[in-house]
Amino acid sequence: MGRVINFSAGPSALPLEVLKRAQSELLNTHQSGMSIMEMSHRSKSFERILHEAKKRLRSLMNIPDSYKILFLQGGASLQFSMIPLNLLQKDNEAAYLITGSWSKKAYAEAKKVGDATIFASSEDDAFRSIPDFAESTLSKRTSYLHVTSNNTIEGTRISVFPKTNNNIPIVTDLSSNILSEKINVTDHGVIYAGAQKNLGPSGVTVVIIREDLIGKTEATTLPTMLDYAIHAKADSLYNTPPTFAIYMINLVLEWVESIGGIEDMERRNRKKAQLLYDAIDCSKLFSSSVKKENRSLMNVPFKTKNEELDQAFLHFAASQKLVELKGHRSVGGMRASLYNAMPLEGVERLTDAMTQFEKRST
Amino acid sequence: MGRVINFSAGPSALPLEVLKRAQSELLNTHQSGMSIMEMSHRSKSFERILHEAKKRLRSLMNIPDSYKILFLQGGASLQFSMIPLNLLQKDNEAAYLITGSWSKKAYAEAKKVGDATIFASSEDDAFRSIPDFAESTLSKRTSYLHVTSNNTIEGTRISVFPKTNNNIPIVTDLSSNILSEKINVTDHGVIYAGAQKNLGPSGVTVVIIREDLIGKTEATTLPTMLDYAIHAKADSLYNTPPTFAIYMINLVLEWVESIGGIEDMERRNRKKAQLLYDAIDCSKLFSSSVKKENRSLMNVPFKTKNEELDQAFLHFAASQKLVELKGHRSVGGMRASLYNAMPLEGVERLTDAMTQFEKRST
Repeated sequence: MGRVINFSAGPSALPLEVLKRAQSELLNTHQSGMSIMEMSHRSKSFERILHEAKKRLRSLMNIPDSYKILFLQGGASLQFSMIPLNLLQKDNEAAYLITGSWSKKAYAEAKKVGDATIFASSEDDAFRSIPDFAESTLSKRTSYLHVTSNNTIEGTRISVFPKTNNNIPIVTDLSSNILSEKINVTDHGVIYAGAQKNLGPSGVTVVIIREDLIGKTEATTLPTMLDYAIHAKADSLYNTPPTFAIYMINLVLEWVESIGGIEDMERRNRKKAQLLYDAIDCSKLFSSSVKKENRSLMNVPFKTKNEELDQAFLHFAASQKLVELKGHRSVGGMRASLYNAMPLEGVERLTDAMTQFEKRST
Repeated sequence: MGRVINFSAGPSALPLEVLKRAQSELLNTHQSGMSIMEMSHRSKSFERILHEAKKRLRSLMNIPDSYKILFLQGGASLQFSMIPLNLLQKDNEAAYLITGSWSKKAYAEAKKVGDATIFASSEDDAFRSIPDFAESTLSKRTSYLHVTSNNTIEGTRISVFPKTNNNIPIVTDLSSNILSEKINVTDHGVIYAGAQKNLGPSGVTVVIIREDLIGKTEATTLPTMLDYAIHAKADSLYNTPPTFAIYMINLVLEWVESIGGIEDMERRNRKKAQLLYDAIDCSKLFSSSVKKENRSLMNVPFKTKNEELDQAFLHFAASQKLVELKGHRSVGGMRASLYNAMPLEGVERLTDAMTQFEKRST
């Protein structure tokens, strides 16, 4: 069986060039005489990789020097706890914009740490939209406002981030759209992203944090591994980092550079998403329940008229090597994830399959 | 440059067969049409890998069904916190056998959580020995006794684990000697090990925990990601696990099986260590300061007569492609790590280099 077109929501498709490069040097990376997986994290060879990855990310995302870049473990899920443990100051509260399953989970972890409030929520709309937060306000006692920029399960996306009063920092879970579109980093106090969608394999999380937000809580009981100050001081080498995953991120970043950086990536991604949304909107069989203005560029949930037809379409698509299109169990139907590594051709093959299937079914 | 002989303390050498296998299927793993790195952690293909890895580990280490096997993130360092957060019950204390830098770190994290006491320590002896704990006692209020089975930095090893009263469980950091020698799992309540020495690449930690020790503390404020009960219930799939690292562990376990299991591995390891210790003991130039009865089978620190000669030897060794032999900065001199993947031939080449160097220097 040859390679398939993989629409998985994460871990997800990686650029073929990157996989080939990793494959070619898997036994002997950078003339070190050993695999990247066998390199000490204290070795010059690995330190060069770590330094390159940070430099590339800083340049691609235009991250000012006043922000630290950390490579941590535990996924976005561990960040759900690390954020309040490090940022939620005594007698203050944390505000959450609730736009889907993941922001709900982040909010639940904050409530374990201290006071957490809901800034706005679209749960009443089954998360088919981003809530209108124009009238929402933040108390002066707010340590931060947490938002999820793209909702992987529900297929929505924040296009305009909230403006906060009193210099309250925005903390953004950018897991499913980092590097896919231009983001003004200075609008955010903290950005974090699990790697397994647009950055590399699972097992590493990138945290981009404004220096003045590090060391804000009293850390006497904070576990060392959950303390941003420790990781920042040690340059992500406090303990053994996931070295192979960081190496892969570096290769993916090099690939993004080769494409032309984030602007070109965004142009590609808008074209891909447009193609699929047009196919859905023109179809009499397929439909999307997401509010048009809030549609994600990365994750596109869609349905036919019933579960049986959904199932039939999934089978038909698989027969054309279009895989991992099953929707999340909480939403049903189909979901196509169109992360950076998905080529336009992959989306064309999907929309062709949709057209063929619709003809056959009517 | 060809492949070197890599004596790194971790991340460390992996079996060449395993690397070649990973390389051969890096673009298309198990006929899935995608790389292991691109597979959803909810896919059948990945679930099979996870299941195989657990099954192999259970069989190789003879782990009873009453123990859960978890694959977590954050290294042994995060376990230093998870252990007391999950096991140290209210009004109880945790006891620590202090045998080196790592057990000191584990103890420091426990003190952040609650009462922690020192069971015995060899710090007065600069950790060149395992303390004599025959006379040490544990209070009835002890939730667990924590030990580090092998001390990577200091080169010592516990050959006989303490016997505890009142069914107090022993929690063992087996990071640097898991799978290298026979361990009676039922003597331990919890065993944990960062993968990057004997199990696979960095970025995954194996936790083997007796079921009745799960859910012992009130978890209302415990971060979800630090709760063994959550990970056990979700079979290590609560959130996206480090899928590639787990895949690599599965390949390494398959390789251990092919060698003949842990008994054969231990025989090989004893032979390798014996060869190096004999070379040190017979030498007039090289010496070891570790107490003979407590010598590690995995990490062998040794020295010449002065730092200049140490440096010269390191250069000489590197010229023969024997690398990563520099001792830990807290100990100095040299350190050869002889984990499972180090072939006997690698140790022979090292002892040959030592003999040659000694002749040249006298």
